[in-house]
Order: sequence, then structure tokens, then C-alpha cells
Amino acid sequence: MVVLLDQTRLPAEEVELVCTDVPALVRAIQTLAVRGAPLLGIAGAYGVALAAVRGYDVEEAAGLLAGARPTAVNLGYGVRRAAGAYRAALEKDGDGEQAARAALAEARELHREDAEASMLMAGHGLALLDELLPGGGHRILTHCNTGALVSGGEGTAFAVALEAHRAGRLRRLWVDETRPLLQGARLTAYEAARSGMAYTLLTDNAAGSLFAAGEVDAVLIGADRIAADGSVANKVGSYPLAVLARYHHVPFIVVAPVTTIDPHTPDGASIEVEQRAGQEVTELTAPPQVAAGAGGAGAVGGLPVAPLGTQAYNPAFDVTPPELVTAIVTELGVLSPVTGAGIAELCARSRQVTIS
Amino acid sequence: MVVLLDQTRLPAEEVELVCTDVPALVRAIQTLAVRGAPLLGIAGAYGVALAAVRGYDVEEAAGLLAGARPTAVNLGYGVRRAAGAYRAALEKDGDGEQAARAALAEARELHREDAEASMLMAGHGLALLDELLPGGGHRILTHCNTGALVSGGEGTAFAVALEAHRAGRLRRLWVDETRPLLQGARLTAYEAARSGMAYTLLTDNAAGSLFAAGEVDAVLIGADRIAADGSVANKVGSYPLAVLARYHHVPFIVVAPVTTIDPHTPDGASIEVEQRAGQEVTELTAPPQVAAGAGGAGAVGGLPVAPLGTQAYNPAFDVTPPELVTAIVTELGVLSPVTGAGIAELCARSRQVTIS
Repeated sequence: MVVLLDQTRLPAEEVELVCTDVPALVRAIQTLAVRGAPLLGIAGAYGVALAAVRGYDVEEAAGLLAGARPTAVNLGYGVRRAAGAYRAALEKDGDGEQAARAALAEARELHREDAEASMLMAGHGLALLDELLPGGGHRILTHCNTGALVSGGEGTAFAVALEAHRAGRLRRLWVDETRPLLQGARLTAYEAARSGMAYTLLTDNAAGSLFAAGEVDAVLIGADRIAADGSVANKVGSYPLAVLARYHHVPFIVVAPVTTIDPHTPDGASIEVEQRAGQEVTELTAPPQVAAGAGGAGAVGGLPVAPLGTQAYNPAFDVTPPELVTAIVTELGVLSPVTGAGIAELCARSRQVTIS
Repeated sequence: MVVLLDQTRLPAEEVELVCTDVPALVRAIQTLAVRGAPLLGIAGAYGVALAAVRGYDVEEAAGLLAGARPTAVNLGYGVRRAAGAYRAALEKDGDGEQAARAALAEARELHREDAEASMLMAGHGLALLDELLPGGGHRILTHCNTGALVSGGEGTAFAVALEAHRAGRLRRLWVDETRPLLQGARLTAYEAARSGMAYTLLTDNAAGSLFAAGEVDAVLIGADRIAADGSVANKVGSYPLAVLARYHHVPFIVVAPVTTIDPHTPDGASIEVEQRAGQEVTELTAPPQVAAGAGGAGAVGGLPVAPLGTQAYNPAFDVTPPELVTAIVTELGVLSPVTGAGIAELCARSRQVTIS
């Protein structure tokens, strides 16, 4: 079975969600109980291993898992890694049990690699901040949640802020609440509080006022998919921050492992953006302790905020073009300026590292 | 007494709030039961009349009312108009009852003027849209709530969209939900639904995606205070829209009566921006029907979303500099480009109109 921390219950409760089969894991991915690009890759790989160990149809499970959410490229990557290891072992030995062990070993290896990538990105990211903003005392604005909750290690953008905090060079982490699902308010604030950082929460609307007041030294965000031209798909609300950052001459920095790059997606326009249910916008979802008080379990949905029948436009992600991205920080180093040639070189270096 | 529609209960319930004294009205203003720049002016004037009719200290009441919220200039304007009429009558006749009647007549006159201004702004605004975007089928993005709920008439920015709708030239009204208090989701969607408009609700974060997709023809917003240089204070989240509109070459249009201009505020930096309680961001306020189900009355506060102890940055407004404002539409016509000289001329014409 795959055991996950149910992120929909945070920060009120730390509840484990146990997935004993692939459909349960697919549901956990679609409801965002497990979320965040790197973690989706790891979850996808463990999901394939789960199917193999249990004797389910591995190819069918891989298809279900890879298709659970369309935008995060890491999900498909993790699934392919584990499924590839399974197939290779099966072809070699013809032994299903052996092949299942190979899939599990590959998932564990991906998990380890991700933790290592986190550590490397944190180091490269802090070096970049120190270079762009000499003198330290960084005031960082971040969006959505990119910490240990999304990673085998300490995350992506959040890991850089954490590295700055540990080095005594983080003055403040500005945390966008990140509507509609409030990953900033619920999850990033939770991780920042646990780490003892100086942090302040704000509505996504208030970020403009911070820029105008000169209170933001850099924006740090993660990514769900990076196209071959350097376009970055990330949580909806990232693109407006990129435009604000450009208008105010503030660095806009994307932190993501090389596995987030999809060389088969040529540009931003080719990135499929997941549209989610309008109810995430038109209805209020009470946090779990309210639901518990009402005698229910889990989050309560269905409390309308807008008039009944209101249609909502609810894309989960938006796309920031490469010309608005100051730098992409990966485990292999910093890419700046962001160009198609630079992305291609990163992919080539990544393959060399993997092969060596 | 002053009877108000309690806007905190919308759209679930249409509840009247009865204010029998000035402190109750001040509280209604501070909790946003009554809100919106033009309506605050009308409420302030009726509040002074209430104090006068009831025999309270009119000067003290005027001070309390004018200070209830710092950013909306119309509030102070309405209070001054009614208090001025009261004082003039008192000076002339020495009769308190006569003076109270004068204050009430002035409040009613302000109410009538505001309705007339709405109608004129709607006409000027639609003419501007037709000029900027020939061919009709306007797709308008709006923020916060600027309709009949904030006005003696049909509002400001919303009145223009409504005029376009009635003329068959509104293709879609994009409604920003407007965190933290969701005036867009609760109030603008309610007014759009009642008017039979084609409208779609979105999180404030998703506006960037609409601009990037070329789905926004113009932004229409109201204003809470316009400085002498043409800087516009409006609901937080307006400034990011102005930056996005500029980046995408989309007109950014402010619709406000001339009373919103404060010639004594020289520039944007001089505008006092109200900071509201952090709980509006860190806690979830359930809509009234949930409270009713829980046996309480009114909105429930105090359901934490973020970890306990989380600090929030919660400015109620932001300031858009004149260079990002394509046009200001007032009852006296359209000002474009927005310059200090143009603002001064508007104020001079407004005084002439008032005197004549």
C-alpha cells in the first residue's frame, strides 16, 4: 500500500491516507490529497510498484496514473521510470515478482534522487539570490506550496527560502494565499511556521501593493511543466506575478528539477492546462475541523458563496513565457537567460548524468 | 432611523439592517454591511441627518461618521454636505428642527444627484467602449462590486457594463471574486445574475490567464479616492489588473463620480490606505446560511485556515498611478489621458455645475 499525508486536511490535522489500490491513489491525486510536481512523480512511481506487487495489470495502472492530472509532467515521468524498470526486469527474467521488486526499487531511487535534487537546488538558488541581491536580508514572495510536502526532500522554491533562512539571510517570506485551494495559507504558512521563518500571509490581490511599496526583492516559484522554449506552467496566479515582477524590475525565479522540463512540449501554447470544477470558486470549502464539528469527516463542500447557477472559469495553472523568467534553478545549476538552447543543453546534461 | 440592505448577508439573504443611532451606522460602515464609495457618501449624509433629527450632537456625529473608514473620500464628502446644510440653516434660523430638516433634504439631494451621475456615467462609459472597441461584443473584466448596491442609482463601473448589456453589446462580464471579502463572488455575481447578463466568475489569480488568452477587451473598475494627479485608490487587486492591462495593451477604465476626486490629496503616495484585520485573510468566514444552521445569526468568523498565529498583510485598497489609467469616466464626461491638469479642470467644472 502507499501511505500519504492527506494535504487537504492540513494545517488542522495531520492525517495519513492509505491507498491499497491504484484507483484510490488516482483519486488522491485528483482531489489534491497528494499534490506538487516532484511528489506527483514519486507517487506515480510508487503507484506502479503497488500495482506490480499486488499483481494488477501494470500497463493499465500506468495509464490511469499518468492520466490522473494532465499538466504536471513529473507524474508521467515517475510512472514511466517505474513501468520501464518493471518491463525491463520482466523481459530479462520473465519473473513477475522480480519485476515488481525492480519497479519498487526504481520508485525508491526516484525518491532519493528527488531529495538530492532539492538539496542541490537550494544551494544553487541561494547562491543566485546572493548574486542578484548582494547584502542579504532577502524579502521573497512565493506562490502556492513548494516545500517538503511536495518533495522527497525539502522541495523546490521553498527549499531555497529555507536555505536562506538557515543562512540568516531571509528577512521575510511573503506567502500568497493562492486561491482557490489556499495552498499558500494552508500549506506554505504551515511549513514556514514549522521552520521558524519570519513570514506574512497575504491575499493574492495584495501582492501588487507589496511590489509598489518596494517590499519584494525576488519572486520564487516552482513549476509543473517547463516547455522546450522555457515557458513555465505553474499554479494559476504565477503569470500575474511575473508581469508585476517585470514591471517593477524584480527577479522572477523558477525552481524546479530537470524532470519538470518536457522537451516534447515545444512552447507555452502547447501546454495543456487542467480546468478544474467551478465549485472550487463558487462554493466555500470549510476546513476539516468545521466538518468534524458538523459530525462529518473530511472537508465540507457545497456552501455556495456566489449565486446558484454561477459559472466559473477555473484553470489550475497558467503559463509564463520565458522572456518574463529571470532564471530557472535546477539541480544541475542556474539557467539565465532562459532560452530554448539553454533548455536543450540542460536536458542533454541531465541525460549524461543519468547515463553515467 | 437609517435602513440599509445588509451586504454581508448577500447573496444568501436580503436582510434589512436598521440603524437607530450614529454608532450603529458607524459599525455598519466599518463591518462593510454598507459599502462602496458613492453609497458611503449617501449613508454619511443620512447619518448626519439622523443625528440632527434625533437631537444628538451633530458635530460629534459628523466626526465619527467621517472617520469610520479612511480611504473612501465620498464618505467625508456626504457628511460635510449634510453637516454644512445643517449649520447654514441653524445659523440662519436658530431652529434645530428646521436645521435637521435641511440636513435630511441635503442627504436626499445627494442621493438624487448620485442616481443621476450613475445614469450619465453609464452613457459616457458605453460611448467610450464603443469608440475604443468598435464592433461591440465587449468582454469586460471587473473587480469588486460597483453596481446598484453601492449607489443611489445603478452604480459606476457596473452601470457601464449594464448599459452595454441593455444595448446588446456586452458579450461577457468577467467577475473577479475579489478576496478577501469576495464582493465580486457575492455581490457583483448577484447583480449580474439579476440583470440577466452573460457573466463568469473567476479567482483574482485567473485574470492573468484571461488576458494572455486575449479574452479581455477592457477593464472597468470604480474608485474610492482619486488624487489630484489622477492616481486612483480602489479595492486591493485593482493595481495588478492595471499592470496586466498595460502589458496586454487593454484599456483600463475607471468609472467614478467627480465627488471621488480629492483635490487635497496631491498624489498616490499621499492616499491613506486602510489596513484591515488579518483575520479576514487567516480565517474563513462562512456564509450566513451556515451560521444559521449552526444556530447563530450573521456571518461566522474564527475558522482558521492558516496556522494559528499567522500574521497577515491586508490592505483594503491599492493605488494605480495615472499613467496606467486609460480613462476616467465621470458624470461630466471622459478624461483621457489622465493628467493633473485634466483632473483640475474636472473639479473646476464640477464646482460650476454645483453653483449653477
